[in-house]
Amino acid sequence: MKRLIAAGLALLVANPVWAADLRKDVSDYRAAHEAAIVGQLDELVRLKSVAADPQGLTATGAYLESQLKARGFETASWSVGGSAPIVYGLLKTPGATRTAIFYAHYDGQPVTRAGWSSDPFVPVMRDGLAGKDLDWKAERPPFNPEWRLFGRAAADDKSAIVAFLTAFDALKAANRKPSVNIKVVWEGEEEASSAHLETILKSHAAELQSDVWLIGDGPVHQSRAPTIYFGARGSMGLDATIYGPLRALHDGHYGNWVPNPAAMAAELITQMRDGEGRITIPNYADDVRPQSAAEQAAIARLPPVEDGLKKEFGIARTEGGEGLTASTMRPAINIRGIRSGQVGLEANNAIPVDAVLSMDFRLVPGQTTRRVQEKVEAFLKAKGWTVVTTTPDAAMRLANPRIIKLAWSGGYPALRSDMTSPAAKGVIAAAQSGAGGPIAILPMMGGSVPINLFDELFHVPIIGLPIGNHDNNQHAANENMRLRNLWDGINLYAAMMAQLDW
Amino acid sequence: MKRLIAAGLALLVANPVWAADLRKDVSDYRAAHEAAIVGQLDELVRLKSVAADPQGLTATGAYLESQLKARGFETASWSVGGSAPIVYGLLKTPGATRTAIFYAHYDGQPVTRAGWSSDPFVPVMRDGLAGKDLDWKAERPPFNPEWRLFGRAAADDKSAIVAFLTAFDALKAANRKPSVNIKVVWEGEEEASSAHLETILKSHAAELQSDVWLIGDGPVHQSRAPTIYFGARGSMGLDATIYGPLRALHDGHYGNWVPNPAAMAAELITQMRDGEGRITIPNYADDVRPQSAAEQAAIARLPPVEDGLKKEFGIARTEGGEGLTASTMRPAINIRGIRSGQVGLEANNAIPVDAVLSMDFRLVPGQTTRRVQEKVEAFLKAKGWTVVTTTPDAAMRLANPRIIKLAWSGGYPALRSDMTSPAAKGVIAAAQSGAGGPIAILPMMGGSVPINLFDELFHVPIIGLPIGNHDNNQHAANENMRLRNLWDGINLYAAMMAQLDW
Repeated sequence: MKRLIAAGLALLVANPVWAADLRKDVSDYRAAHEAAIVGQLDELVRLKSVAADPQGLTATGAYLESQLKARGFETASWSVGGSAPIVYGLLKTPGATRTAIFYAHYDGQPVTRAGWSSDPFVPVMRDGLAGKDLDWKAERPPFNPEWRLFGRAAADDKSAIVAFLTAFDALKAANRKPSVNIKVVWEGEEEASSAHLETILKSHAAELQSDVWLIGDGPVHQSRAPTIYFGARGSMGLDATIYGPLRALHDGHYGNWVPNPAAMAAELITQMRDGEGRITIPNYADDVRPQSAAEQAAIARLPPVEDGLKKEFGIARTEGGEGLTASTMRPAINIRGIRSGQVGLEANNAIPVDAVLSMDFRLVPGQTTRRVQEKVEAFLKAKGWTVVTTTPDAAMRLANPRIIKLAWSGGYPALRSDMTSPAAKGVIAAAQSGAGGPIAILPMMGGSVPINLFDELFHVPIIGLPIGNHDNNQHAANENMRLRNLWDGINLYAAMMAQLDW
Repeated sequence: MKRLIAAGLALLVANPVWAADLRKDVSDYRAAHEAAIVGQLDELVRLKSVAADPQGLTATGAYLESQLKARGFETASWSVGGSAPIVYGLLKTPGATRTAIFYAHYDGQPVTRAGWSSDPFVPVMRDGLAGKDLDWKAERPPFNPEWRLFGRAAADDKSAIVAFLTAFDALKAANRKPSVNIKVVWEGEEEASSAHLETILKSHAAELQSDVWLIGDGPVHQSRAPTIYFGARGSMGLDATIYGPLRALHDGHYGNWVPNPAAMAAELITQMRDGEGRITIPNYADDVRPQSAAEQAAIARLPPVEDGLKKEFGIARTEGGEGLTASTMRPAINIRGIRSGQVGLEANNAIPVDAVLSMDFRLVPGQTTRRVQEKVEAFLKAKGWTVVTTTPDAAMRLANPRIIKLAWSGGYPALRSDMTSPAAKGVIAAAQSGAGGPIAILPMMGGSVPINLFDELFHVPIIGLPIGNHDNNQHAANENMRLRNLWDGINLYAAMMAQLDW
């Protein structure tokens, strides 16, 4: 398989000299405009595009539409029922036979101010992840590429948008014509479950014809190499409540006799997954689509990152015996939280009234949310649980020895696009050319992006172009974008606009 | 065994007519003074004798000492280093050969106002556990014995003190002479781990010579029958912290590879105890002293309460296949709390940084706190855990795959006094005589009272005379004392003062 892909690349990177020239042009442009590029990211982060601020979302959408318009794009702003607008853009390239859609989302995760070292919407530059504040506007470029700009959505995904705009400007400045027709879909509700995305995409199916979707979301590989991915795991949330006695009971007088819901929750966890993260629900993996030889080969080629990550995370062992990416190719049940009774100074000697267990199911191709739910619930019933969806009353509790209340949430399936399609080979070739060095090619991200929707609606290859550093704290406090990753992203996007072809 | 005890009772309850007269005298006295008795409990609850209020403790001690003095007791107030006073009282009975010490504590559990339906220090009468408020001062006795007075320490143990004082007054009013010399030890720091008790008892060993300690603490049997107990389980607290990655990690990108501390905690729980509450730590039960035939027979004779409790607690099954008291004769590991990550609306898709597990170990005779700690820690080490007592740094975490931080707290061993000693038989006989009907005789309470200290210091029988209803919410919000139990307690205490002999 290695030879096959290598042969494909030799074929596709038709003109390495031209590619090197392009890289140089783009890099030179970036070097000459570092302050302006960071300035645009800073400006974009200040626009509060979070679900809690509908006006901020609207303003951000308007800003982005104006940015496309200024660059000669035909634009539109799509919204239904007051949703945050999807910013659409189209730039036809005379003579181009292929059309690529560049997707990103401009909304950020909700913000909890606690935990942030600075205002999430007033970007601060620091000289590292735990670095000191810098007045970057007073500094003279070239900036140290290890600097990071901190702010909500700085990485996820506003940097992808800035990289796109800058790459476009760099090509124009170098008088380089795109190789494809360019379409843009910038969404404003991704962090709020993309509630209106499907409706809007369906009603604009005609405008959204393309040959490939390029997804500007997600982190790059932990090796920090420029990365493309061919899929992402699906995701479902599950909160489960397990019931103990109607009121907290003195565990001296009643412990060993009244069932302890925390112990029941512990038993349930160990019945669902073993200490190595392997799911032990019978037949759970029946639906899983096997990995292809190309996918396995791609994983084997990834630069090793495991030792570095163990150090970064302070862990001495890992679950399972495989590397990181091989591990995340499997379905997973992640315990994201458990709450029962009290601990520490608040602990009292009582049997808790319940235990709440929050789980995150990661799906792989072949699994559907419906089948996962069915299998989990069948397993629970086989283990003697009475599965309910509303809080049981006293009579029900008295009649059923093990009651579990389930609340499923936010489900969508996984996607792995074919890594060997002509479009896939074209994207790989362009990415390698744009990087001018090794890139990381992931068959599937461990994390989830609902790109299955694009696949279901449009049946074209869906390929990820992430640019954020893996340690960008997306979805957490102190989200940040490392400048080196932004610079790499500009080159990656420029290559996709100017070199993509098949 | 049944025959032996029955024979013993026939011997000891020498004069059933006299016993019935005593019960009638005491009951008549109580019926004539119900408002005053409740008034004294009300007055006592209003004295804020909680650890957070040292002045309240001192004032309560002074009040109680004055109550004894007024009844002709020699009294003393013992304190060290500013501790809450121990109120001591002595009333010699001419001709008596035995001395009984009546112990109770006048301090209450700390109060968290949340959860209380009324001010914990302004007693409210209600016509049931979830009943409506009554203006009992406007009601004409006899009061409905199902009424309950709500307030902190109303049951635990201020009712035992009121029962003692009332019983004494009733005997005096009936011109009945005590059968024993009476000593009183009323402690004010029991709910704060009795920090100064041992020191004070040791320095007053001469005054504290006796033939039996009678412990006015704990709830009665769930059958609501008057109860005596011959011991209590010991107790140790353990908070354990299990470490995951140094920072919370996206469980899509890292789940299945970075160890999940919540899953590790679940595995640990299931390794320590099974779903039936049986401890599965190897050799854990080696130290356990077997139950005697008398103890087993006493348990077999207890009125069945299990079906009623299952209904009261809303549970359809119990742990283990035994009755409640048989279950609580075993050592226990109770999970009183677990915390890891977030659940519900706060849940995010992250591998938590740690899991905190709070456990309450209940000890039975033969076990020592030192041996329990040794066995648990040896078990953890055998399972691959690195046991620490301070938070591990990054280097330590990188070098040790499973680190658990342990914080043990509040340990003391169990006690089971001999149920067949002459003193035990005397107390059983007096209790049965005072009740005039069936009583519950417990070899050991499931809950813990540090009465082992009295045994270690004085080597005399230690026997419990609880009077609080089992559903008194002691240690929780809405603590309450049911009047029927207070009335029963007065008869029990009167019998111990006037009929105890052997």
